[in-house]
Amino acid sequence: MPERLRPAVSAEDAVLEANESFYRALQTLDLDRMDGIWLHKDWVFCAHPGWQAITGWEEIRKSWEGIFTNTRQLKIRLRQVGLQLCGPIAWISCIEEITADAGDGLAASLAQATNIYMRVGEEWKLVHHHASPVPMTPNFPETERVQ
Amino acid sequence: MPERLRPAVSAEDAVLEANESFYRALQTLDLDRMDGIWLHKDWVFCAHPGWQAITGWEEIRKSWEGIFTNTRQLKIRLRQVGLQLCGPIAWISCIEEITADAGDGLAASLAQATNIYMRVGEEWKLVHHHASPVPMTPNFPETERVQ
Repeated sequence: MPERLRPAVSAEDAVLEANESFYRALQTLDLDRMDGIWLHKDWVFCAHPGWQAITGWEEIRKSWEGIFTNTRQLKIRLRQVGLQLCGPIAWISCIEEITADAGDGLAASLAQATNIYMRVGEEWKLVHHHASPVPMTPNFPETERVQ
Repeated sequence: MPERLRPAVSAEDAVLEANESFYRALQTLDLDRMDGIWLHKDWVFCAHPGWQAITGWEEIRKSWEGIFTNTRQLKIRLRQVGLQLCGPIAWISCIEEITADAGDGLAASLAQATNIYMRVGEEWKLVHHHASPVPMTPNFPETERVQ
């Protein structure tokens, strides 16, 4: 029996954990945490819902800084999380159930996200985040929204 | 000198060619061609602009069939094409400049796309297409739209 004390974490679990860390950073409006989640390269990609896309970590970081500065509270619940993994690349699709307060009260919205992660050493780094508005429909009832 | 008669195609070029084939299938409203572009698995993913996402080739094929049946003419010009490649996975981000005629005249729109391709044997197959509406802005002047 190997002498490892901790159970091995599967690649799938490690990617899901990276994805959860991303949404934790978002909900805690924590730029330092966001720093640790993204790969700091000039080709990484981010499209916030309804915005034009941004390329390169420096510009993406500025966009998060702006969002965090202008947001009082942000809650996100994920649905329909799909994970695909192929060697050092993984991609997750999910629905973001967003409740945000930008200073004028809570507003709910839905977004479809595609998040691509790349394995770098022992870590899975976010390299591509594409989130886009999804129409609210009876499939996503209000009663199940994040409180 | 190797005896190869044809020059080797780089992986980057092969992925870009696969992406062009996808948009060619779209513009020619050609379902057979679309059949040859996607990986036929139950986990492949497609989000048309403003729609809820669809998973699995059978459902995705039906959605293209519906789009092609209800479209007279579709022209797409790509901008800001970004390609990343890592082993057997490649992902392309691009802006789609769309001019469509669904029977009631031409309408122009913009979409941000994320397309993920997987190398299967000698081919690059589409496994994830996420397209979402982008606001029309002065960065995308009318005069440069597809005619």
